[in-house]
Amino acid sequence: MVKTIKGIAASDGIATAEAYLLVQPDLSFDKKSISDADAEISRLQDAISTSDDELTKIRDTAKESLGEEEAQVFDAHKMILADPEFTGAVEQQIKDQSVNAEQALNDVSNNFISIFEGMTDNAYMQERAADVRDVTKRVMAHLLGVALPNPALIDHEVIIVAHDLTPSDTAQLNKKYVKGFVTDIGGRTAHSAIMARSLELPAVVGTDTITKDAKEGQTIILDGLNGAAILDPSDEDIKHYQKLAKDFADQKAEWEKLKNEATVTADGKHFDIAANIGTPDDLQGVIDNGAEGIGLYRTEFLYMQSEELPSEDDQFEAYKKVVEGMNGKPVVVRTMDIGGDKHLPYLPLPDEMNPFLGYRAIRISLDRQEIFRTQLRALLRASAFGKLRIMFPMIGTVQEFRDAKKVFEEEKAKLVEKGVKVSDEIQLGMMMEVPAAAILADQFAKEVDFFSIGTNDLIQYTMAADRGNEHVSYLYQPYNPSILRLVKHVIESAHKEGKWAGMCGEAAGDNIMVPLLLGMGLDEYSMSATSVLRVRSLMKKLSTADLKELAERAVTESVTNEDNKKLVESYINK
Amino acid sequence: MVKTIKGIAASDGIATAEAYLLVQPDLSFDKKSISDADAEISRLQDAISTSDDELTKIRDTAKESLGEEEAQVFDAHKMILADPEFTGAVEQQIKDQSVNAEQALNDVSNNFISIFEGMTDNAYMQERAADVRDVTKRVMAHLLGVALPNPALIDHEVIIVAHDLTPSDTAQLNKKYVKGFVTDIGGRTAHSAIMARSLELPAVVGTDTITKDAKEGQTIILDGLNGAAILDPSDEDIKHYQKLAKDFADQKAEWEKLKNEATVTADGKHFDIAANIGTPDDLQGVIDNGAEGIGLYRTEFLYMQSEELPSEDDQFEAYKKVVEGMNGKPVVVRTMDIGGDKHLPYLPLPDEMNPFLGYRAIRISLDRQEIFRTQLRALLRASAFGKLRIMFPMIGTVQEFRDAKKVFEEEKAKLVEKGVKVSDEIQLGMMMEVPAAAILADQFAKEVDFFSIGTNDLIQYTMAADRGNEHVSYLYQPYNPSILRLVKHVIESAHKEGKWAGMCGEAAGDNIMVPLLLGMGLDEYSMSATSVLRVRSLMKKLSTADLKELAERAVTESVTNEDNKKLVESYINK
Repeated sequence: MVKTIKGIAASDGIATAEAYLLVQPDLSFDKKSISDADAEISRLQDAISTSDDELTKIRDTAKESLGEEEAQVFDAHKMILADPEFTGAVEQQIKDQSVNAEQALNDVSNNFISIFEGMTDNAYMQERAADVRDVTKRVMAHLLGVALPNPALIDHEVIIVAHDLTPSDTAQLNKKYVKGFVTDIGGRTAHSAIMARSLELPAVVGTDTITKDAKEGQTIILDGLNGAAILDPSDEDIKHYQKLAKDFADQKAEWEKLKNEATVTADGKHFDIAANIGTPDDLQGVIDNGAEGIGLYRTEFLYMQSEELPSEDDQFEAYKKVVEGMNGKPVVVRTMDIGGDKHLPYLPLPDEMNPFLGYRAIRISLDRQEIFRTQLRALLRASAFGKLRIMFPMIGTVQEFRDAKKVFEEEKAKLVEKGVKVSDEIQLGMMMEVPAAAILADQFAKEVDFFSIGTNDLIQYTMAADRGNEHVSYLYQPYNPSILRLVKHVIESAHKEGKWAGMCGEAAGDNIMVPLLLGMGLDEYSMSATSVLRVRSLMKKLSTADLKELAERAVTESVTNEDNKKLVESYINK
Repeated sequence: MVKTIKGIAASDGIATAEAYLLVQPDLSFDKKSISDADAEISRLQDAISTSDDELTKIRDTAKESLGEEEAQVFDAHKMILADPEFTGAVEQQIKDQSVNAEQALNDVSNNFISIFEGMTDNAYMQERAADVRDVTKRVMAHLLGVALPNPALIDHEVIIVAHDLTPSDTAQLNKKYVKGFVTDIGGRTAHSAIMARSLELPAVVGTDTITKDAKEGQTIILDGLNGAAILDPSDEDIKHYQKLAKDFADQKAEWEKLKNEATVTADGKHFDIAANIGTPDDLQGVIDNGAEGIGLYRTEFLYMQSEELPSEDDQFEAYKKVVEGMNGKPVVVRTMDIGGDKHLPYLPLPDEMNPFLGYRAIRISLDRQEIFRTQLRALLRASAFGKLRIMFPMIGTVQEFRDAKKVFEEEKAKLVEKGVKVSDEIQLGMMMEVPAAAILADQFAKEVDFFSIGTNDLIQYTMAADRGNEHVSYLYQPYNPSILRLVKHVIESAHKEGKWAGMCGEAAGDNIMVPLLLGMGLDEYSMSATSVLRVRSLMKKLSTADLKELAERAVTESVTNEDNKKLVESYINK
């Protein structure tokens, strides 16, 4: 019977395929006393041997479809199974304690994990702890006779059904066969949603119950445009969605024609649409989608993908590649934004009760200046190869900006003295994401070259609501007049001092937000590369003259988020 | 040799006494194989018996100096030591595993704790887990031959030296002998600092190193006025501080004379100084210090001190007592502010990555309406006995206020229909502590009867910096123009609609802030009862006419927190 599950539309597109449940099975067990240790050891050996065969298969498939790097993790798992220190200890425990294999495996594994995790200053050992945990899960599943999902083995078209998708889950998926995601939790700004948009896969998140509703192998239509998953669709449903999918494809083809055009409104005003990237690998997508620059290069990925602090030269190479690759178009690089929910294994940070309100981003950079100075030197050297702009994340006070700028000037002077070639036209700006900074934007505007509004954090702090916390997700209100007042103040403050203002948060590509932002005169819109053409097409239809009044009404007359949603919708549909 | 340790002045006053180090000793141990189990069991029994004697002594002292309730916790500890299920299991473990008593105690204790803690819906068992943890620590200390601090046994005048002080540490202190606190960590808004001010004990926090610098029994002068601890003071130091202490006492006596006076500025303007309370027990302090009302009654203590949700009648009695006790002066009651760092054992809340940005206060009340409605009914009934005002915490959107008001009106109508006597003049207001609300204060002002600005949270969210996190404590900037702009907008918005605005955060009693707030026209100042007379005295010397211009400069000309500190200081010293 047809069943429709509603959720949040997280990434555009329509897909139809079989459900693949990426759900962890119940691996709980009872401790048992056993009398026949040999029989128990033989059960253990069977489970280990089955696990090893499975790992070989997964590794081979992963190597072929995902590449060498993704496959290596499974080699590490196989090595643990082959290690007599580990498996021997489990056997010994069965004999010594007369317990079942599950209990023995659990005890030995916990022991190994706690030893490895105890070596807190050793990133390698920390990763080994994760490996032991993973491989133990696999052997335990075989001991208990339950099936473990093996996403790396997927060999036909599927839609992934999961409670949530972590970045490491996603790394193991074969993009050839995965046609979309649908999850229980998350919102439009969750990692899984951002990932889906960058992979151009339809996704629906926050359904609450999809892992309970969907069955393995069941046909699912995923409607990423409207936020729904249709289980066991009827022929009529299939026909309806085929039409929707075709319309969407046609629309994309229409957008595609705008690839080499400038972004101009109906009344002839030009704006810049830029893209957000995480690594130099994302460059191709930016170029393919005709973005007019990079509005946010998140450099923390460089740090997160590394085993130790990336060297000045490694950073220089990455920055140079991006700056050169953009061929004279501007590239805004954000300095390291670590802390909050982003941690580096080799840079221990304090345990914090509220990490989003803690030691992060520029607060770390100003405190651990050797890391900051290395990054700035790499950026300064890369500036000779294109149009580089630098911005600092999480600036809350003018003093912080002054301090960061001083460090920049010092490193620049040192390089110049050494004869290193450095551009003299590097703009220095800041993220506008701390409410205190947005409120005081007029004072900041006298000291910066530009602002880039980070809506996700700005909304999170202004509303005092964690954007990842589903219990307060109703407070993610980008159109709330309070948020729009801050945005407007930031833009006007920049213009008053002859500076420019951009936005690199989710909202810059939002259909309701774009008309308001045009009305406020926002100069630069930076978004997922895959949104660039849609927004360019939208802007071509809009006239800034009308929108100025609309934006004014949004901050003076409207009282709620809903008021403004209706205001813009009724304008667009009129 | 004299040594001066600098810290943050957290509570006024000067004290001289011996250092008492409330520092947890190192209780780590090595696992050892033993051959003589009987000898090991006898070591264990000695440690248990010494611990039991000690607990008897502590209990008796505690009962005498602190009261029955504080003493009961030690009876619970003694019961565990007398329980053969517990001690027998440790002995058995020594025999079975041939391990030393430390290891056996540790294993058994962890086992008990994890069982008790596993019963997450049973508050009683959760508390037993804490008891087992405490008593294990005591026996372990005796096994290892190290000394455990026993603050309940203090029998001479001391200054407590600690890394930090938790509320439960403080409950065990005998106020007769404790003359002050000095701690390594914390800021002016930490629990220990708030506690010290309410006990009128001098305190210095955030010294970083005092637990390393001070030695047990060493003489310390604690300067809570300037934030310093002087170790091994010279005769000259002692003389100097005796003079300071006398001046402070004289000043307090001078303030005392203002107890029955109204709060009037030099140019004859009247303002209200109110007090913050947590329980009806605080009422006497409010009256003794001549406050003109209660500006913040934190009702969550009623919930936190209870073993289950307090009944409507229990709440009614508490509210009635406060409202009646104030004898016609206004009492502003804040509805339940649970969540964040405040948890109830009987109301499980979700685990959150950033609880300060999570499910708390009005967000819980609107979601769990049965709890909210019970509280509102109790408040409505109490309104017949005095001048009651109600405010909602953590309001971020106009919709939330409307929703909360609707629930209030519904409960009121139901009571009126039943013939219950309810005041018709209950003002309904809101805390201004979420930046989004402060920014939109002009819209809120059309719907509320009053605002009360909660500076601690407002600063925390506006600066995106956890007020309890020492790594970002530099961002607690009450004078930052960004914060002052919000405060000014809130006050002006209220006045424009004929409503009043108060402040119940730390800053309302701050010597730098008060002149600025007077300049902005803030109507009501609510603070620790012990600050009321100092602030009344300060206001008598200030003239609002001058201050208006000062406040204007603070939000238009100043750029940093420091700028405004200097601005006010130079005005006062001119």
